[in-house]
Amino acid sequence: MANSPTGDSVTDRLVRVLETFTPTRTVQTAAEIGRRTGLPSSTAHRIVGDLVEAGLLERDEDRGVRIGMRLWELATRSSHALRLRQATMPFMERVQARVQEHTQLAILEQDEALFLERLSGPRSGANITRVAGRLPLHASSSGLVLLAYADAELRDRVLAGRLVPLTRATLVDPSAVRRKLAEIRTLGHAMAPGYIEDVSTGVAVPIRDETGTVIAALSVVLPHGTPTEFALVELHRAARDTERALGYRR
Amino acid sequence: MANSPTGDSVTDRLVRVLETFTPTRTVQTAAEIGRRTGLPSSTAHRIVGDLVEAGLLERDEDRGVRIGMRLWELATRSSHALRLRQATMPFMERVQARVQEHTQLAILEQDEALFLERLSGPRSGANITRVAGRLPLHASSSGLVLLAYADAELRDRVLAGRLVPLTRATLVDPSAVRRKLAEIRTLGHAMAPGYIEDVSTGVAVPIRDETGTVIAALSVVLPHGTPTEFALVELHRAARDTERALGYRR
Repeated sequence: MANSPTGDSVTDRLVRVLETFTPTRTVQTAAEIGRRTGLPSSTAHRIVGDLVEAGLLERDEDRGVRIGMRLWELATRSSHALRLRQATMPFMERVQARVQEHTQLAILEQDEALFLERLSGPRSGANITRVAGRLPLHASSSGLVLLAYADAELRDRVLAGRLVPLTRATLVDPSAVRRKLAEIRTLGHAMAPGYIEDVSTGVAVPIRDETGTVIAALSVVLPHGTPTEFALVELHRAARDTERALGYRR
Repeated sequence: MANSPTGDSVTDRLVRVLETFTPTRTVQTAAEIGRRTGLPSSTAHRIVGDLVEAGLLERDEDRGVRIGMRLWELATRSSHALRLRQATMPFMERVQARVQEHTQLAILEQDEALFLERLSGPRSGANITRVAGRLPLHASSSGLVLLAYADAELRDRVLAGRLVPLTRATLVDPSAVRRKLAEIRTLGHAMAPGYIEDVSTGVAVPIRDETGTVIAALSVVLPHGTPTEFALVELHRAARDTERALGYRR
């Protein structure tokens, strides 16, 4: 529908506009959006104007625009993310209250771990994760769980790609990652000691649907060197309770 | 841009498609979407196809489509809703843990109370609120707080509109609502005993920015007849702590 001379649909251009917003770039002018999308300035201004009119973007006091509350509402209220998150929340809160460290829920999305939720207490340590943020599958404990139980095709694709090191501990050798994934399937959980940040260790367990397919990973981020047993027990309990709450397990 | 014969922009039609999804209607076929939007079937199919290709909608195993994870991610990661919610979460969790009833965060959006978050415990009672759901301003305790501190123009507009009763206790007489709002401004909190559901009482307090403008309402839903003092104290503490966390108060 309504394709441009270059053949991309209006929907594509709209997504390109939305993609210029990031967790650290929440307000932009239409001119900046034009530059970042590579769209002609007049096109960028027109799309921004339409999005503002529809309430998907909101104007600032200045000339800036930001993601509108209406877009958040439309995207959230009937999303699969919300259902999973709502089912998991009471049990994530229990983990957070007992372990007193960052507690996180992630799913597989476009070959990365997408974080649906993160709970943090006043005493929680360092943590790079953000809600609606992503981390590489080979480096984060959540990502490793999702990768360990993913289908072979996805696993091969990720391992054939570039495995970026985030610290000196991150596994970047495909065969080392393969051994790690086999270990995760045997143990039923993943440890990522210092893979993302030197100072912390991620610990993650899978959440499964009624067929046993892994649909999400539940994790905590502990200060490096902390014993992990207590957190693991709490994570496993929370995963089982979530599966029960979703009707996937009796 | 790319207007249809009836003059609505592609963005408008796209929003109309997204608006057909609701918390209880999370999967639809393109044909159903066409019927519900009133768009010609071929147009609806084309828009749905474009949205699926861009990842904003996802296809089901059957012929259904649902809101895509990508849309949730784009809408959430740089949203104002997320920042307010993240700042409030630790204090909402404290309220929920101590009061053991539904704890909620709402903002004013298009003359309604839009709920950004809801925390519930295993023992919490009845509650109609949903994340990304809405309630009328005159009926919910959150809505009454937002209305009490809203500008006069918005207040007049809402009071001039139809004040729908949800129970026999809901205030529907504009002058009764005006008296209620004055009372809320004097007390600094709102009570909504049985206004939304007979069995419950909402209690809400405002969250303010650095200029003193009310930007959100924090509330709990108690079983009707429960003493409200303890919940109110916890809500006020949580509101102050949120304002501090956001840098709005020292």
